[in-house]
Amino acid sequence: MRSRQVLPNFRIAIVGAGAIGLYYGAKLAHFGRDVHFLLRSDYEAVCKRGLRILSKSENIHVAKVNAYRTTAEIGQCDLVIVAVKTTSNSELPPLIAHLLGEKTIILTLQNGLGNEEFLAGHFSAERILGGLCFICLNRTEPGVVERFDYGRLAIGEFRGHPRPRLHDVAWEFKRCGVVCSVVADLALERWRKLAWNIPFNGLAVTAGGLDTAAILANDGLRQLALELMDETIAIANACGHRLPTAVALDLMKRTEEMGAYRSSTLIDHLAGRRLEIEAIWGEPLRRAQAAGMEAPQLEKLYCQLVRLDQAQ
Amino acid sequence: MRSRQVLPNFRIAIVGAGAIGLYYGAKLAHFGRDVHFLLRSDYEAVCKRGLRILSKSENIHVAKVNAYRTTAEIGQCDLVIVAVKTTSNSELPPLIAHLLGEKTIILTLQNGLGNEEFLAGHFSAERILGGLCFICLNRTEPGVVERFDYGRLAIGEFRGHPRPRLHDVAWEFKRCGVVCSVVADLALERWRKLAWNIPFNGLAVTAGGLDTAAILANDGLRQLALELMDETIAIANACGHRLPTAVALDLMKRTEEMGAYRSSTLIDHLAGRRLEIEAIWGEPLRRAQAAGMEAPQLEKLYCQLVRLDQAQ
Repeated sequence: MRSRQVLPNFRIAIVGAGAIGLYYGAKLAHFGRDVHFLLRSDYEAVCKRGLRILSKSENIHVAKVNAYRTTAEIGQCDLVIVAVKTTSNSELPPLIAHLLGEKTIILTLQNGLGNEEFLAGHFSAERILGGLCFICLNRTEPGVVERFDYGRLAIGEFRGHPRPRLHDVAWEFKRCGVVCSVVADLALERWRKLAWNIPFNGLAVTAGGLDTAAILANDGLRQLALELMDETIAIANACGHRLPTAVALDLMKRTEEMGAYRSSTLIDHLAGRRLEIEAIWGEPLRRAQAAGMEAPQLEKLYCQLVRLDQAQ
Repeated sequence: MRSRQVLPNFRIAIVGAGAIGLYYGAKLAHFGRDVHFLLRSDYEAVCKRGLRILSKSENIHVAKVNAYRTTAEIGQCDLVIVAVKTTSNSELPPLIAHLLGEKTIILTLQNGLGNEEFLAGHFSAERILGGLCFICLNRTEPGVVERFDYGRLAIGEFRGHPRPRLHDVAWEFKRCGVVCSVVADLALERWRKLAWNIPFNGLAVTAGGLDTAAILANDGLRQLALELMDETIAIANACGHRLPTAVALDLMKRTEEMGAYRSSTLIDHLAGRRLEIEAIWGEPLRRAQAAGMEAPQLEKLYCQLVRLDQAQ
């Protein structure tokens, strides 16, 4: 790490300034990196009061934020971090176009499956990196994000083996203190995370607003969570990813240790916001169907979530 | 916060590079502050590999550390942060003398009671600030500190009301992301922390190596913890500090929420290191006696700890 050079004039854009975008953007900006935020509802609050990250271990205040209302004003960047909710993906292509130079890298930190493919469909697959965020955040007011737990990032290439530019991007995070690792197989890691998100984010909402501890405490829900997990692992394998079945045991054990955790989907649901149904449940279900596999529990959960989301 | 100026050439010395000194020193140095570490057993490892802080949410690597074997080489500083174990207090006066200029502030982040008084006895009481660290750390190898939880600092004046220089020191921490608050009554806060440390750090060791969850799960130990807490609160009040008795309920509730926590005293004990008996149990017991108060449970616990420590 010590011999790695600081990249000169490495311009970073944050597109999607919800909790994830504001958090990682603030971490980079606080450490003096050249970060530019596309903001909408938070624009005025951030211009006035800056950006704040609050947690038990760390409070960050970025007083002067490079805030913009359009990506045209930001202009070309070296790295575009995409963190909009997947329900807004259709708005992304014209926004991102203004930020791209010949070598611009696009890193999506969005949830679920299909986001790298979506971006690759509009831009070049060559440019795309994906990242998984292991973090519990809540944007409590404009420009203010609370971090409750964790903070780790895992990033990988959308296509092919890790290249030097992937390590450069990891280093941008690491030098700012973010726990960031490079993964060799991004798709496999997305499925590993889905094996947790599909049961625990879904049941949290369909069972009536439960945290992880409450799901585990109910025998029926606990069993259902395990079945959903097994089904997800089976889909991953049907799609050609080698996700060991033992992952389920490991994930259940970790869930027991994490205490009462409220998933981002539950927080969205309680706040009356749209859920990321297609990215987390819909796309994996379609992958199962494309692989000729039945996924009855996932299908049932998906339908329940669609109904709930439409009723809101 | 935004209008506060960065102090030019504000030199900081860290005396006592155990977990606490390395952690807060690394946080300041990582953010580019002018920090100078007095190191002993960690000197060579830190010169070779730098300083590392590891946690779930943040990994910090300070590659180039200002490391010294003597305080004479460090020379005058604006702020001296004292973080040696209280069992080594007698070594401090000659070490600190080399660091003092006319206006140098000394901030002790040590555990328990009597440290500010000790420093004030050797230097001027005017210079002394004290801080409480709400953090769970472990120095896992030379130059490497793991943070398990928390991170908050609370700092106050040893004598008199908060002065601008106290806020300046708090700002030094805050700008580096450390959660740091200024307390109006440092002694009261020390007693509030002791009301927790006296029972939970002590029983962890005398009951045979238990974390907080194991203490709470045992009815006898739980009751004893409450009695020790009540006794500590009574001593604080006998000494003229207004510590509400309801503090006990609040602390017990928080302990239940924190899960299985291993106190620093337990970690020291398991590692075969000397325990900070006088600072955490001896001095409060002497204060009780000076105030003409009986503290039978504290006295018993103190005697048990002294015997255990001598047997190691």
